[in-house]
Amino acid sequence: MIIVMIPTATQTEIEQVISRVTGAGLKVHVSEGKLRTIIGLIGEKKLMAQLPLEAMAGVEKTISVTAGYKLVSREFKNEDSVIDVGGVLVGGPQLTVMAGPCAVESRDQLLESAGIVKAAGAQFLRGGAYKPRTSPYSFQGLEEKGLEMLAEAGAATGLKIVTEVVDIQSVAVVGAYADVLQIGARNMQNFQLLKAVGKSGMPVLLKRGIAATINEWLHAAEYVMSEGNYNVMFCERGIRTFEDYTRNTLDLSAVAALKNLSHLPVIVDPSHGTGLWKLVRPMARAAVAGGADGLMIEVHPNPSEALSDGSQSLTPANFRGLMNEIRAIAPVVGRRMA
Amino acid sequence: MIIVMIPTATQTEIEQVISRVTGAGLKVHVSEGKLRTIIGLIGEKKLMAQLPLEAMAGVEKTISVTAGYKLVSREFKNEDSVIDVGGVLVGGPQLTVMAGPCAVESRDQLLESAGIVKAAGAQFLRGGAYKPRTSPYSFQGLEEKGLEMLAEAGAATGLKIVTEVVDIQSVAVVGAYADVLQIGARNMQNFQLLKAVGKSGMPVLLKRGIAATINEWLHAAEYVMSEGNYNVMFCERGIRTFEDYTRNTLDLSAVAALKNLSHLPVIVDPSHGTGLWKLVRPMARAAVAGGADGLMIEVHPNPSEALSDGSQSLTPANFRGLMNEIRAIAPVVGRRMA
Amino acid sequence: MIIVMIPTATQTEIEQVISRVTGAGLKVHVSEGKLRTIIGLIGEKKLMAQLPLEAMAGVEKTISVTAGYKLVSREFKNEDSVIDVGGVLVGGPQLTVMAGPCAVESRDQLLESAGIVKAAGAQFLRGGAYKPRTSPYSFQGLEEKGLEMLAEAGAATGLKIVTEVVDIQSVAVVGAYADVLQIGARNMQNFQLLKAVGKSGMPVLLKRGIAATINEWLHAAEYVMSEGNYNVMFCERGIRTFEDYTRNTLDLSAVAALKNLSHLPVIVDPSHGTGLWKLVRPMARAAVAGGADGLMIEVHPNPSEALSDGSQSLTPANFRGLMNEIRAIAPVVGRRMA
Amino acid sequence: MIIVMIPTATQTEIEQVISRVTGAGLKVHVSEGKLRTIIGLIGEKKLMAQLPLEAMAGVEKTISVTAGYKLVSREFKNEDSVIDVGGVLVGGPQLTVMAGPCAVESRDQLLESAGIVKAAGAQFLRGGAYKPRTSPYSFQGLEEKGLEMLAEAGAATGLKIVTEVVDIQSVAVVGAYADVLQIGARNMQNFQLLKAVGKSGMPVLLKRGIAATINEWLHAAEYVMSEGNYNVMFCERGIRTFEDYTRNTLDLSAVAALKNLSHLPVIVDPSHGTGLWKLVRPMARAAVAGGADGLMIEVHPNPSEALSDGSQSLTPANFRGLMNEIRAIAPVVGRRMA
Repeated sequence: MIIVMIPTATQTEIEQVISRVTGAGLKVHVSEGKLRTIIGLIGEKKLMAQLPLEAMAGVEKTISVTAGYKLVSREFKNEDSVIDVGGVLVGGPQLTVMAGPCAVESRDQLLESAGIVKAAGAQFLRGGAYKPRTSPYSFQGLEEKGLEMLAEAGAATGLKIVTEVVDIQSVAVVGAYADVLQIGARNMQNFQLLKAVGKSGMPVLLKRGIAATINEWLHAAEYVMSEGNYNVMFCERGIRTFEDYTRNTLDLSAVAALKNLSHLPVIVDPSHGTGLWKLVRPMARAAVAGGADGLMIEVHPNPSEALSDGSQSLTPANFRGLMNEIRAIAPVVGRRMA
Repeated sequence: MIIVMIPTATQTEIEQVISRVTGAGLKVHVSEGKLRTIIGLIGEKKLMAQLPLEAMAGVEKTISVTAGYKLVSREFKNEDSVIDVGGVLVGGPQLTVMAGPCAVESRDQLLESAGIVKAAGAQFLRGGAYKPRTSPYSFQGLEEKGLEMLAEAGAATGLKIVTEVVDIQSVAVVGAYADVLQIGARNMQNFQLLKAVGKSGMPVLLKRGIAATINEWLHAAEYVMSEGNYNVMFCERGIRTFEDYTRNTLDLSAVAALKNLSHLPVIVDPSHGTGLWKLVRPMARAAVAGGADGLMIEVHPNPSEALSDGSQSLTPANFRGLMNEIRAIAPVVGRRMA
Repeated sequence: MIIVMIPTATQTEIEQVISRVTGAGLKVHVSEGKLRTIIGLIGEKKLMAQLPLEAMAGVEKTISVTAGYKLVSREFKNEDSVIDVGGVLVGGPQLTVMAGPCAVESRDQLLESAGIVKAAGAQFLRGGAYKPRTSPYSFQGLEEKGLEMLAEAGAATGLKIVTEVVDIQSVAVVGAYADVLQIGARNMQNFQLLKAVGKSGMPVLLKRGIAATINEWLHAAEYVMSEGNYNVMFCERGIRTFEDYTRNTLDLSAVAALKNLSHLPVIVDPSHGTGLWKLVRPMARAAVAGGADGLMIEVHPNPSEALSDGSQSLTPANFRGLMNEIRAIAPVVGRRMA
Repeated sequence: MIIVMIPTATQTEIEQVISRVTGAGLKVHVSEGKLRTIIGLIGEKKLMAQLPLEAMAGVEKTISVTAGYKLVSREFKNEDSVIDVGGVLVGGPQLTVMAGPCAVESRDQLLESAGIVKAAGAQFLRGGAYKPRTSPYSFQGLEEKGLEMLAEAGAATGLKIVTEVVDIQSVAVVGAYADVLQIGARNMQNFQLLKAVGKSGMPVLLKRGIAATINEWLHAAEYVMSEGNYNVMFCERGIRTFEDYTRNTLDLSAVAALKNLSHLPVIVDPSHGTGLWKLVRPMARAAVAGGADGLMIEVHPNPSEALSDGSQSLTPANFRGLMNEIRAIAPVVGRRMA
């Protein structure tokens, strides 16, 4: 951490800061600049975090120079992590495709969807059984009944199941039916839930919060990993910006950023990321070309019948077209399809 | 809801949309414009929400014209709601002041803080016992021990206690010690938690999510109210924007916006809203002048010793100065101080 | 400037950076931390700005610790600047009120408006003669004809005139009729225009760009001042965020921030800042309570007839009500009204 | 346009609105809903724009349903526009690559850069002669001297020249040396400049403003086209969001959005879009896979010597690697390289 003093800081103020910092067990490097004095701190980040330096006389600001996470970082583990989900490897040379409807609506719809995405080459079936919704009066999901349908569809097709947990209670329930626990965007900083999925030991798909910085997202993954669960996958799904043509702004640069900073796999969800089915296919191609380890795509047998998010679901034909396109792009980035 | 057709929509496409909509039990008003046809929908919002109209051929977009909330609205209840917290009224002619340290650090610190804010005229003591933190390695609060200290400080001073709940489990625990359950910004769309505090029946302080629109915030309050708990107070605490000089951008216009749209009281937290103690006092004055029902202010007996958020806490002297200023502003906006 | 090296930087890489920096005439302070080496640079900012340090091997990032502006800063001039606009002082103990219609529509409308705002206590008449509009097909203003009307209204009432310049050509034209040259939000970083108004020597009202940080805004003022023109006033008019209930998000915390960082006066425009006339009055009160030096308010004799921005203009009666309110708040913040 | 009345609007208020609208020469469709009345307007957009309906009694809000642009739209021209820049076609089956240093620094640097990017397959040389900079004290470009160097490098290599115009004066000067006039992000809504490049008739590269919506960007292009100049290319270069890891957030979904809404070509600039050379290559691949018509890439013979933006420039070797990658991706999206 760096402490920047104001230009008019007195020698006494500088000394009080130094004394406070060294009293907390940290070392300092003092640099007297042309305009102002700068004090570098050396030692445990934890100790620094507890010093309210900006409230001390003569301090203009403090600047943090090191990250507050460790286990998620490339410095902790240099080679890419490959997550084994019941034999399907995420993060290795093979691209991962998770597909299916936004919400589980009925047994028929789900089995039909599962058949379609399996035939097109997906390895995972997605579908919400618990649906967080802005309004309390919107459809909230089929809950455990939906989980049963997901498990049945998984057993029938061999697809792995990824579905959302919405609170600590649901972790055990979902864990009994699914292969991957999904943390939704609204819960990315629900730290109690992060600890609970951490304790579960199950693979976790951690969606980015709608206004989360990459730095906060890495810290959220650290919450899971600090419970001893190293099976974490990131999922970029768009951030909230001023642009309102798209539902969110899909931040594809986050993929390469995460791959530089962390060893964990990164999945991209262009369906929620754009909210417009016409943009899903180009953005899915872009995600693969940009280095993503996989895709999460909404596919619906009949989009105009979908109970939620119909306008962002691909038709089966569009999904098959997309699969062919990414099959062609994959080798350019050193990947292959299942 | 309004359906805007593309300019080249065929008569068949228009008829298919109309047929789909009327088939779902809704009525339509068709308006054939110069450039395009527009279809207005009349009926239950719930039915409309389940129609994936944007996926139908010929549809350009849909536009929602009515809100998805009801109980929170001025249309449901025209006069201002006044929340009774153990005899202290929030939302009436008297301004509410909640003050105290960011986190409960120790019994001494808390009792000292409580004495200071009580003497200066506050009616509520704030202080976090459970602290959601970006990094798992940061100080996470004293938890139930902290709650005991809060209750003791409340008993000693007569101050009401407002403190955060972080998960469903904590609702009963916090409820046993506190007078108001605070929902933090990160949990504004933790719908399970909203329902849980709704069921508790206790007064709820609902902080705005860091990237929540006013519309989403109103819906979050609707979650609480739809469980039968009408004792909800909003708390504006800044939103995330591109500006990085301040910790957040305190959106004071949300106060007047909420007062127009809803009957519920609105509190403003300029401490988290700006993150800089030098800005707290001017923004607190501005909040009162702008129509807020009250303030939530971080005060610390000795800011440079605070375990968290030191740089945004006021000193006791600054807090007393602020109280004098808002005492003078209050009558201009038809309010008075305790 | 601080250079943060990666944890695995070699001694050679560190030495190459130091050699590059010292070769450019700068001094360094090297601090070898527990995890990484940090190099502080001392010397002319201009020299630092030209070193592409982040492209050098072993460098993780650079952090700037000092501002790129000088003349606008409190460090350059500690006491508040008071701008003399033909005898009307902006930035001193007396609050400044600029009011009038969004656009000059006709001679009658303007003279009527001028009479209304003068009678209510305003010192300045605002009104656009050149109107930058998103669409080329929208009303673009009466141009020089509008300027003549403004000058006539000014002469008739004694009000000072503030109106926008939109390009270098318009500087001399507007300067012949107006007392203050306004730089609109879209031109805040039109550096050629900033230099031109700098050279004019006339008082300048510098509106904040829709996505400008406070830091960029200060630099824009520095462009004007670096041409020798010290008569600069800031005008906060809202920033673009994700919130769409209001037209912009009025960032009142920028007022106190600017007053801390700079000696120049700060005006607040709640009309453009909110876009909703119901929010103008509370936000104008809030601005004064928060320390603004003045207000810019849209007033229209008959808002429902306005050619642009009708929904954000106050009626004469509302404007008079507002003036009474701020007259009552002014003394609390050490101000008085004309 | 749709007018949404408040639920409690009286019959008189509704009739006043209708009378006002029909009095202005527009037709209406009135739809009396369950909760509120909605009035649809039919007629000239220009007439609607001048009615300040939101200030009328009983009006809750108005909603615009049609765009304010025409010439840029797919509805005006369905097939893709191909811009002929001295024989090099932009927007057709062949991908366009514009590359070169951020700023023209010296004759040697520029000629070396031109040779490198030409050899690697670029068709355009980029390089700033006029550099808009946040601080007045930063390097502002070599101006006309730099233009001469660009023209010389173009003549020597056969590369077309694209460089920025910063004000109306510079249009003729730049036009004498360059093949494409670039409008920088800060000038996207400098409407006088847009009209000036419109009148020039020369090909225009229109960068997106840092906080411009896609809708505003389309309107900016309409300004150029409404002067009779149809040779407009969009350039996505990142928007400003809360994320601070990257310099901007490159919005690749804007590419597919623009291709749906407009017939004009779209270029992507991942160098400014990310600000980090490590992210440039993956995002350039992503842009091509996502349907961009071309790329604008900063390449510097020796990035650590660059006067500006060094950390986002590719080395020659990295640029050649990138060209090979996009050559492989191009056929997947129906494109080919020069």
